[in-house]
Amino acid sequence: MRILVVNPNTSASMTDRLRRELEGVKDRATELTVTNPAEGPAAIESAADEAQAIPPMLALIREAAPRHDAVVIACFSDPGLEEARTLVSIPVVGIEESSLHLAAQLGRFTILTSRCARVPAKVEHVEHLGLSSRLASVRPLEMGVLEMDADPDQARARILQVGAEAFREDGAEVIVLGCAGLAGHAVALGVALGLTVIDPSPVALATAEMLVRLGLTHSGAGTSARLRSGSM
Amino acid sequence: MRILVVNPNTSASMTDRLRRELEGVKDRATELTVTNPAEGPAAIESAADEAQAIPPMLALIREAAPRHDAVVIACFSDPGLEEARTLVSIPVVGIEESSLHLAAQLGRFTILTSRCARVPAKVEHVEHLGLSSRLASVRPLEMGVLEMDADPDQARARILQVGAEAFREDGAEVIVLGCAGLAGHAVALGVALGLTVIDPSPVALATAEMLVRLGLTHSGAGTSARLRSGSM
Amino acid sequence: MRILVVNPNTSASMTDRLRRELEGVKDRATELTVTNPAEGPAAIESAADEAQAIPPMLALIREAAPRHDAVVIACFSDPGLEEARTLVSIPVVGIEESSLHLAAQLGRFTILTSRCARVPAKVEHVEHLGLSSRLASVRPLEMGVLEMDADPDQARARILQVGAEAFREDGAEVIVLGCAGLAGHAVALGVALGLTVIDPSPVALATAEMLVRLGLTHSGAGTSARLRSGSM
Amino acid sequence: MRILVVNPNTSASMTDRLRRELEGVKDRATELTVTNPAEGPAAIESAADEAQAIPPMLALIREAAPRHDAVVIACFSDPGLEEARTLVSIPVVGIEESSLHLAAQLGRFTILTSRCARVPAKVEHVEHLGLSSRLASVRPLEMGVLEMDADPDQARARILQVGAEAFREDGAEVIVLGCAGLAGHAVALGVALGLTVIDPSPVALATAEMLVRLGLTHSGAGTSARLRSGSM
Amino acid sequence: MRILVVNPNTSASMTDRLRRELEGVKDRATELTVTNPAEGPAAIESAADEAQAIPPMLALIREAAPRHDAVVIACFSDPGLEEARTLVSIPVVGIEESSLHLAAQLGRFTILTSRCARVPAKVEHVEHLGLSSRLASVRPLEMGVLEMDADPDQARARILQVGAEAFREDGAEVIVLGCAGLAGHAVALGVALGLTVIDPSPVALATAEMLVRLGLTHSGAGTSARLRSGSM
Amino acid sequence: MRILVVNPNTSASMTDRLRRELEGVKDRATELTVTNPAEGPAAIESAADEAQAIPPMLALIREAAPRHDAVVIACFSDPGLEEARTLVSIPVVGIEESSLHLAAQLGRFTILTSRCARVPAKVEHVEHLGLSSRLASVRPLEMGVLEMDADPDQARARILQVGAEAFREDGAEVIVLGCAGLAGHAVALGVALGLTVIDPSPVALATAEMLVRLGLTHSGAGTSARLRSGSM
Repeated sequence: MRILVVNPNTSASMTDRLRRELEGVKDRATELTVTNPAEGPAAIESAADEAQAIPPMLALIREAAPRHDAVVIACFSDPGLEEARTLVSIPVVGIEESSLHLAAQLGRFTILTSRCARVPAKVEHVEHLGLSSRLASVRPLEMGVLEMDADPDQARARILQVGAEAFREDGAEVIVLGCAGLAGHAVALGVALGLTVIDPSPVALATAEMLVRLGLTHSGAGTSARLRSGSM
Repeated sequence: MRILVVNPNTSASMTDRLRRELEGVKDRATELTVTNPAEGPAAIESAADEAQAIPPMLALIREAAPRHDAVVIACFSDPGLEEARTLVSIPVVGIEESSLHLAAQLGRFTILTSRCARVPAKVEHVEHLGLSSRLASVRPLEMGVLEMDADPDQARARILQVGAEAFREDGAEVIVLGCAGLAGHAVALGVALGLTVIDPSPVALATAEMLVRLGLTHSGAGTSARLRSGSM
Repeated sequence: MRILVVNPNTSASMTDRLRRELEGVKDRATELTVTNPAEGPAAIESAADEAQAIPPMLALIREAAPRHDAVVIACFSDPGLEEARTLVSIPVVGIEESSLHLAAQLGRFTILTSRCARVPAKVEHVEHLGLSSRLASVRPLEMGVLEMDADPDQARARILQVGAEAFREDGAEVIVLGCAGLAGHAVALGVALGLTVIDPSPVALATAEMLVRLGLTHSGAGTSARLRSGSM
Repeated sequence: MRILVVNPNTSASMTDRLRRELEGVKDRATELTVTNPAEGPAAIESAADEAQAIPPMLALIREAAPRHDAVVIACFSDPGLEEARTLVSIPVVGIEESSLHLAAQLGRFTILTSRCARVPAKVEHVEHLGLSSRLASVRPLEMGVLEMDADPDQARARILQVGAEAFREDGAEVIVLGCAGLAGHAVALGVALGLTVIDPSPVALATAEMLVRLGLTHSGAGTSARLRSGSM
Repeated sequence: MRILVVNPNTSASMTDRLRRELEGVKDRATELTVTNPAEGPAAIESAADEAQAIPPMLALIREAAPRHDAVVIACFSDPGLEEARTLVSIPVVGIEESSLHLAAQLGRFTILTSRCARVPAKVEHVEHLGLSSRLASVRPLEMGVLEMDADPDQARARILQVGAEAFREDGAEVIVLGCAGLAGHAVALGVALGLTVIDPSPVALATAEMLVRLGLTHSGAGTSARLRSGSM
Repeated sequence: MRILVVNPNTSASMTDRLRRELEGVKDRATELTVTNPAEGPAAIESAADEAQAIPPMLALIREAAPRHDAVVIACFSDPGLEEARTLVSIPVVGIEESSLHLAAQLGRFTILTSRCARVPAKVEHVEHLGLSSRLASVRPLEMGVLEMDADPDQARARILQVGAEAFREDGAEVIVLGCAGLAGHAVALGVALGLTVIDPSPVALATAEMLVRLGLTHSGAGTSARLRSGSM
């Protein structure tokens, strides 16, 4: 099967890193296309950046969909996920949505984000998905992606420290690495922390593969019924 | 005070109609600028249209903000509302958010939308605002904006019929006219139905005027605390 | 337009202070009547006081309604708000309800109360309004109204301290001054704290003016439908 | 033990009927005082009536408390319940609160009210108690108390009809007779319907007896902690 | 009336202690049978233990039901409560369910458990009962049942300490003694703490007595209606 | 990888059918063991049956775990799922939990059950998983497993009819086949209905394969923090 993975920002180095990571975990039968739009912000650091990134990403997905079996949007805020689903009929998987639904099956989870300004948005996403009762906390690492790249040992140490605090103070059983700069650390971190550590991109890819294999996709059916409060 | 009202689509006739309506209800001291972006979709009929409309609208708001005291985004789904607030420090008011918070103070409310495909999104917005306990229902009129324009008598008749059903079957006390083509009908409809009928655009304008008069705006403060589940 | 503002307790000095504050912020076209019932408790410090205060206040509102266009109940617990709406058809605005719905549009908010014994009631009110997801915290100042009057510098200092804690520890973006003794401090406090600070009485007055201008009021319609769980 | 039962309206005939009913179900060791305030509305048919009834009822409870071991407030909307608890240290039991907490232990319940105008208030009470997930529906009988008195056969027939609809259409397993005029019908109705039928006043009396026997009452402790959103 | 009280584990000493405690608080007219299954785990310390304990307990209840008027399941997690209700038509009362519904009527409550590993399960139970808005906290004592037996002075001291913390930090007004080893301490602890302290087993017994006296039981009616989301 | 699939009842024919179905969808690299306990009820038709089935199933899982990489519990109520996770460290997947978390990513879903008596339990499960906001409805087919086996054409026709009603009346976009007798119909039904139709057992197997491939399992960590209300 052919899976299209889109990094919504225009950073080629980030796309390359994502490709290397996913090539290592994909099903043997999967052909991966990992790419990014030609236009848009080089990094998504605000709601306004995200709004700028969505239209070129949607154009890319619409153009490429006929040559693929499923799409993964590889940014932890799942930008444009709902919109893409209205444009194409193949499955579209968001790394946040798919990884949080898996995390919810494994235990109470804490999401690690890079910056504290992102914390309220993450809590809102979890509420929107209906998974608040399984959320232990959202904790910022207070390290930027560039810092993590420049000093991976420091990044690992910081994750271990904040993850241990999440376990001790918030009752976390599962840690979700909520930003791209953290990719590839999951297995080692899980062992070191004694907790389940989830790297979202591989989960999204595996979910896309599962959907294709089972012949499932989002529904194209509009909802025709009048909805009363409480019925949605 | 100077208020910028932005119609996020590029339909000049819709912008003109909005201008005429708001000129009739504004405070005497208010100078209105009612405008639309030069680029983007002519009508917002899907989530993908909305994504396309947001970037040019944000550019327009950012450019015009220094010459205004407040901004109103005049589309009932409040596209780009949160994003605009991160770009400018003057108040930004959405017609859906402001009119639903007012409706919630007046009674159990029903939102009328043009098409049933919009119903689930409306219910989600109400949940997101925390106002579900005051929502009676969301009901589609099953008439497009163009049809309403072409046959206003038919539009009025349809609103009266669906509004009466909302009162009788859903316990609605307040009707919110959830799409632009319905503007200007509120007072007559309220009398005919014996219910409170809310036209969102005037409410948003009056809310913007109130915020300017009271010296209030959204907070520019980031939230610095770690948020535990349940505290947001 | 003529707006009746009722201080539900019988303290004439509090009524005078409220009148002075609102005269400074009202619309030029508004004629204000700020008054209090002749009978009832001099201060509302408990649920039992509140129960005593409501009947004379309702009598006053019913008697004065024919000569006014809207009513504001000026006590932060909104005593008798629902009851008054069943007695008169002009808009009745509560300072807590109207200011919290506005606060919810501006950011995550913290309510400052005078005494900690009031904290649980405030949290319940916010839940009842459906605005819990926007509530950062309720924090007591631990100063009575009389102390605030006697030592305004101390009151200001205490508000700055607790407001800063609410920002730092609870992620508050907006501060709502949840008791009358705090009136008039909002603008200066907002500047000093770098947060949005809301004084409820002016918001209630401006909301009443908006409702009159737009021809809106609470619905007199009873709800005739059988309500299933989840539909209210 | 001595239990004070207060009918909050001033109808002596209703108080007499309540006394006869409770004398038949009380514990042998219980001395009952069933009374009503000398002043206030003869019937509680609106929120404003309720506000009028509370102050004289609170005065009566405060005066009589030293000679009793517990108080029952015998009106299905539990008027003044919270306020009474701040005035006396003996247990104060509301017939709505106690009967709904018992109903929740026995199955999904439907509340029967006399008039449809009361339906939204009942749904809100259930939400306030946190018992919504156990509520099947609230259904009006559309018969007044006087009609029920005048034609008890018709009242029984109407309850059987609406109860059967609640079972068939709403999944009700338990019926709560949510108004005083229905008292005394519970056992026969339960047999006829094949459902559990709860008469609230005897449940409230038995709950008061249980609290006295176990030495329990509401807490007089104020809550001293700052409450964050989500912690209440 | 004859009440069957079942200790679901096979510890005869625990059954004896429970019998002694309940003999002291039962109604004079009540004949108590306090027993335990012959087979199953000697203590319930995990979810797997609980699963093992349920089948023999259900067999015991089914066999003994014809000779009794009500059943109490005396383990704070209410194991097998729903299942037992499908097997017998006499009332079946759980000590957790009945005591938490009573606690909710008396104030914001904190549950004390023996071990922290039980804390998440308790919070989930409270959510399942719909009583979260009345829950102050769940706090572990970090003492086992055997330790409590061996050193009752130490147990009392620990409860006083944790109860005082719950009052001070969580706003608790009512303390529920959430494990069997704590029985018999309630009255003295309530006095010492100045809070309401609830011992669950006597509450469950009194609730069973009330149900028998009032002729009430859980409904045997299946729910026949299709349930939409939000209606359950 | 070696996956153990347990049918919790003792019906060998049902186990055989499940084995045939899963052999057709498993990953080529997966070695399947599909089995059932030697003891326990032949069919799970009540809560009491379920309680009887859990202990032998747990014994089977504990014994077989060392020879497997993951476990699937193949009964739509996920009996013993939490308990099994406390006994083994390899992933344990429930067919209801995993399929509902996938359904929630694909659209608003309706669960089809065999009998209406199961409807309330299903709605509660969905609430417990936090997925209520994505639930359209739970609808009974009113056909038993044996009837479905005896007349598959009739079964298909009934599913098409009820699925179409769920789409039309409840706004369902996704149908979850909530009982074992429905297995194998999903693809054809999806085409015929124009909706996404999910067969839970293959989803559970694919989820187990994904967890093994990604090295993930439920957390063995106890939660050590004190949990305040709202933080779980």
